[in-house]
Amino acid sequence: MFTLYYAPDTCALATMIAFKDAGLAAGDGYALRRVDFKRLEQRSPEYLAVNPKGRVPALVTPRGILTETPAMLAFLAQSFPQANLAPLDDPFAFADLQAFNSFLCSSLHIAHAHRMRAHRWVDEANTAAIKAMQDKVPDSVGACYDLIETGMLKGPWVMGETYTIADPYLFTIAQWLEQDGVDPARIPRIVDHRARMAARANVKAALAEENA
Amino acid sequence: MFTLYYAPDTCALATMIAFKDAGLAAGDGYALRRVDFKRLEQRSPEYLAVNPKGRVPALVTPRGILTETPAMLAFLAQSFPQANLAPLDDPFAFADLQAFNSFLCSSLHIAHAHRMRAHRWVDEANTAAIKAMQDKVPDSVGACYDLIETGMLKGPWVMGETYTIADPYLFTIAQWLEQDGVDPARIPRIVDHRARMAARANVKAALAEENA
Repeated sequence: MFTLYYAPDTCALATMIAFKDAGLAAGDGYALRRVDFKRLEQRSPEYLAVNPKGRVPALVTPRGILTETPAMLAFLAQSFPQANLAPLDDPFAFADLQAFNSFLCSSLHIAHAHRMRAHRWVDEANTAAIKAMQDKVPDSVGACYDLIETGMLKGPWVMGETYTIADPYLFTIAQWLEQDGVDPARIPRIVDHRARMAARANVKAALAEENA
Repeated sequence: MFTLYYAPDTCALATMIAFKDAGLAAGDGYALRRVDFKRLEQRSPEYLAVNPKGRVPALVTPRGILTETPAMLAFLAQSFPQANLAPLDDPFAFADLQAFNSFLCSSLHIAHAHRMRAHRWVDEANTAAIKAMQDKVPDSVGACYDLIETGMLKGPWVMGETYTIADPYLFTIAQWLEQDGVDPARIPRIVDHRARMAARANVKAALAEENA
């Protein structure tokens, strides 16, 4: 049994989808624990004891606690090999997949975070600088999507013919692209991928749990 | 034979060390291709054909090109299992290692990058905002190091008793901590790790190649 600490509209959704893709069921294979950002619960002593980073997601496993979405997704793929969520026996293909997920966390998600979390990288009282950082988001997020659109997204799924853990991760972040000021018409392949993901039963069920 | 595109004083050093840790030799197992940042070679059409992201490192393999340091390091560990650079047969321990490396790329390295590369996230003409972002670096980088110092660095090596691919990666980024305005006295365990890494023959040889 796993327990996932999550909050709605965060990258925790990727792991919530991956649970289902791995064949786990809510209440049986995993439990969800919502962290209330409005009450700043992520900074509470109780939560910091779970994840000293004060962020979601955090995955409680029988062996210990994992953080960082790329690591958690690969953990699920390796723990449930029968679900075929990653090319586990091919170091190059696995690295290619990991490179995609690493780009999502360290480039695309970071560019996005400058809209809502600019205070991580500037004095929170400096409203002019925060505004300037927010103004750059459509460009910086858009540039990341351009790289995905024009090459990294192999199609029909992120890594090609086979659905992998990269798919729920891209889907999760791509939910925010309009709010980030990116014109969907600029990235039709990503928008098509998002629509096909949204039609999947596991994604619908995870979104329902996220907003429950 | 691998070819690594690198530049001095970048996170490419982690892979240069890992080559040697994996048992590969310069000119035999791998070749190095320096990308001249002063001439903006990373934005040249020739280099963008190698890595459309316009960044280093990029690793040319017989199967294709890999980017993103966490993916490249795990690729080397999986490709040369006899070097014992990662717990390859233990999904939880492997994920724990990946979580560490993911934190380095998406939190510590990103916080650091706001000192020299703030223009990624703000208009490059906005010198006031760039200055404000640079002013935050000691705090934001320092907070990442605090998390490593007080828990994530298990000791004596990053993941505990066994040296892994997390060690050259932490060492590489920790070379910059004084320039980032972090007081070494604040993080004695990380500074001790850095000194022990610097004393290793593979690290000395990689540093010599980086600066050749």
